Amino acid sequence: MTVYLAEFVGTAILILLGGGVVAGVSLARSKALDGGWIVVTLGWGMAVAVAVYVVGAVSGAHINPAVTLGLASIGEFDWALVPGYMAAQVLGAFTGAVLVYLAYLAHWEETEDPGAKLGVFSTSPAVRSPAANFTTEAVGTAMLVLGVLGIGANSEHVSQGGVDLAGLFSSGISPLLVGLLVLAIGLSLGGPTGYAINPARDLGPRIAHALLPIPGKGSSDWGYAWIPVVAPLTGGVIGAWIWNLTGFGG
Amino acid sequence: MTVYLAEFVGTAILILLGGGVVAGVSLARSKALDGGWIVVTLGWGMAVAVAVYVVGAVSGAHINPAVTLGLASIGEFDWALVPGYMAAQVLGAFTGAVLVYLAYLAHWEETEDPGAKLGVFSTSPAVRSPAANFTTEAVGTAMLVLGVLGIGANSEHVSQGGVDLAGLFSSGISPLLVGLLVLAIGLSLGGPTGYAINPARDLGPRIAHALLPIPGKGSSDWGYAWIPVVAPLTGGVIGAWIWNLTGFGG
Amino acid sequence: MTVYLAEFVGTAILILLGGGVVAGVSLARSKALDGGWIVVTLGWGMAVAVAVYVVGAVSGAHINPAVTLGLASIGEFDWALVPGYMAAQVLGAFTGAVLVYLAYLAHWEETEDPGAKLGVFSTSPAVRSPAANFTTEAVGTAMLVLGVLGIGANSEHVSQGGVDLAGLFSSGISPLLVGLLVLAIGLSLGGPTGYAINPARDLGPRIAHALLPIPGKGSSDWGYAWIPVVAPLTGGVIGAWIWNLTGFGG
Amino acid sequence: MTVYLAEFVGTAILILLGGGVVAGVSLARSKALDGGWIVVTLGWGMAVAVAVYVVGAVSGAHINPAVTLGLASIGEFDWALVPGYMAAQVLGAFTGAVLVYLAYLAHWEETEDPGAKLGVFSTSPAVRSPAANFTTEAVGTAMLVLGVLGIGANSEHVSQGGVDLAGLFSSGISPLLVGLLVLAIGLSLGGPTGYAINPARDLGPRIAHALLPIPGKGSSDWGYAWIPVVAPLTGGVIGAWIWNLTGFGG
Repeated sequence: MTVYLAEFVGTAILILLGGGVVAGVSLARSKALDGGWIVVTLGWGMAVAVAVYVVGAVSGAHINPAVTLGLASIGEFDWALVPGYMAAQVLGAFTGAVLVYLAYLAHWEETEDPGAKLGVFSTSPAVRSPAANFTTEAVGTAMLVLGVLGIGANSEHVSQGGVDLAGLFSSGISPLLVGLLVLAIGLSLGGPTGYAINPARDLGPRIAHALLPIPGKGSSDWGYAWIPVVAPLTGGVIGAWIWNLTGFGG
Repeated sequence: MTVYLAEFVGTAILILLGGGVVAGVSLARSKALDGGWIVVTLGWGMAVAVAVYVVGAVSGAHINPAVTLGLASIGEFDWALVPGYMAAQVLGAFTGAVLVYLAYLAHWEETEDPGAKLGVFSTSPAVRSPAANFTTEAVGTAMLVLGVLGIGANSEHVSQGGVDLAGLFSSGISPLLVGLLVLAIGLSLGGPTGYAINPARDLGPRIAHALLPIPGKGSSDWGYAWIPVVAPLTGGVIGAWIWNLTGFGG
Repeated sequence: MTVYLAEFVGTAILILLGGGVVAGVSLARSKALDGGWIVVTLGWGMAVAVAVYVVGAVSGAHINPAVTLGLASIGEFDWALVPGYMAAQVLGAFTGAVLVYLAYLAHWEETEDPGAKLGVFSTSPAVRSPAANFTTEAVGTAMLVLGVLGIGANSEHVSQGGVDLAGLFSSGISPLLVGLLVLAIGLSLGGPTGYAINPARDLGPRIAHALLPIPGKGSSDWGYAWIPVVAPLTGGVIGAWIWNLTGFGG
Repeated sequence: MTVYLAEFVGTAILILLGGGVVAGVSLARSKALDGGWIVVTLGWGMAVAVAVYVVGAVSGAHINPAVTLGLASIGEFDWALVPGYMAAQVLGAFTGAVLVYLAYLAHWEETEDPGAKLGVFSTSPAVRSPAANFTTEAVGTAMLVLGVLGIGANSEHVSQGGVDLAGLFSSGISPLLVGLLVLAIGLSLGGPTGYAINPARDLGPRIAHALLPIPGKGSSDWGYAWIPVVAPLTGGVIGAWIWNLTGFGG
């Protein structure tokens, strides 16, 4: 059960810090208001790194159903654990969103735009176009899983020089590297859809948005909600199979 | 006594660089004027990292009473050292604020807004609401202490692969990681209250603001001063106990 | 053949993320619009780091004909592999540009300026002056190759303290360092020409721009195309020889 | 002689990239124009890191007379090498400034403001006040030397856990840490004087400004030139002695 608790806590941290940075730059009277894209993307990147440092040694810190599914699809993760991991991730993301709501409690009433409020919780497309939005999310998540596998393989690779340092970088610097990978994807591929690249990251907070008593909130936009769930799962499997078929992992 | 001196110097460095970056972006005619939230948060994050590199090997570089109290509350730090650590931290923060005053000596007279001057020294809420402000500071500090414990545990974890590298990362890369953790919290949770998340960081400089001959200064806002003291202490204990109860530290 | 595949994939990642960040800040209605120079340069720097983490252990991740030629010119790379590496790099860059086109599919029609569209694919000079533009690109690429050799030599240097850690940093932290080197060059020397500093990075996407059905696209500016090819190759050789003649590598 | 060559090349790289970033954000028609304080400070920080990676293993990469003098003043560097190091640093800085002039060749004529042109080469105070400006530069350089000694001591400290890894971090990650230290000082203490914190960094390029045929250049402001020379030397010695007297180095 500890691994599920770790996925729950890790994903809650991800959303507390990730949703928090969007709240910071977009809710009225916040000191971080209009901090810009660098603040948003660095905030999400560091959110990932912090979450992985806290729970990585326990559960591997997938904190993302697309990572869990991608790894399982190439035999790098036990299928029996997949449902529990995914449930814990969605519940953790929901809980993280509630914490963001509390941390920015004085700012919801101050903010007029319902779209800005929803944006703290879940993603929306810059230009609404299901095929294009799906493609963007799938490409971004394929890049994420491919990058995670590359970083992980490097950790193992460095262990072959005499001393077994396999675990060293996976816990030493790898969490930071995974955070920088998400920073890279956000900077480069976040423009069209706000880069969910993680079904739990989008779905859990969207449920929180629907349930929480947010003053002046609008629609939770359920019509779009399937794309940031299905496209990342698809992209995650594609990224894992690119890694598998190229044989870069040795 | 060396550990107290280290906490004093470390906290002075924290405030020299942390208060300095706020002075840089907000005092009139500064070359960093209007540098934005990325400059503020990166400045505070790197301030932490530098302080920890200079004194971490001596005292562990708590440089924050909330970290000291949180660690003591779960048996990870000796209660007998707590009063001395906290006193050194507040004195160090006061001294760091005096150094900021000197480093920006030509800019106080140039600046009209008394609120901008106070902001160089201590925090203030974006929306004044004691319950909400308390919650934000408590959540941020719980995240800080939980993150510090996660980074520390990773350092120990990597030592189990044959060679004892426990100390390696705690002094090698961990200070940078703790700085990036503070960057993350600032980016994501700094919007509502300016993230004191450290009683010494707020109280020491507020005393300096009250005592220094700053031209055209206004009130030191003592009515708010208890929140960035009590809320971080509360949050620090909560964060430490989350770590303890989840058992992530093994 | 695996090394060529690695160069192909690595350069495709470089352009997917590097071209992607330019698309993000310059195509209409993107959420990253007007993110500024910090977003562009950090995006390219992290693009390099991610590409090197994914394929560095396989092919060394040159992902740049100027690096390949520079290394070969001082005997650090096998001339027999040079043509295959370069071909794979240009093909990979072309493929990466096609992926950027797809990831930003909904934004081409929204964008009016044909110059902004070309800028997603290839570089152009701020002030058109062949001699000056050539100099800028040659200086930047010399700095790149000199820096890569310095980072590589440090990796080997650290291995002489008892444990053979040669491979450790080359795969552990060196990919990030190479990304930060490209960040440095972009921040500092990118102003005049947009820092191609890589023939494949400019030529492959320019071909993609010419071939793809981009709505409202303008000229592919073939008159400028030779500079970001010839100048980086020249600079790469110069940088490698500075390293060689100073004897810093021992 | 190789150590002097290394100091020469290292300081040239520092100024090529450091002066380059100022040119990028301030010369007319540059693509980095108005990139802001984050671009300037990150550019200088990464300039330091790159320079130290290229020449650190050869000469220790002081690339700053204030570091050389500070280390010598506490017995950590041979007095006999001090004059040669300092001369090489000033010559290297001059050469780096010439390279910046060439890399931005097309932009001098485009730029009207003579102050912007001088700013690419050397520092100037935001508010002209010799006592205040001297204090700012001395405080900043004391912080620099104290931080460098802390980072260096950490490198040695980590070697005591069984394996001699002393050299590992000094060449592995320490150059990056020193770059981040300079980033921290720039973000926090750069506002009043533009943080020379290095006599060679200011004097060498000021001589280049006086000698180069820059179109429409103004005065080289020799009246201010002594402050960024004398104050950093003073601060460097103070920082070294704080380290020495506190005994943090063990």
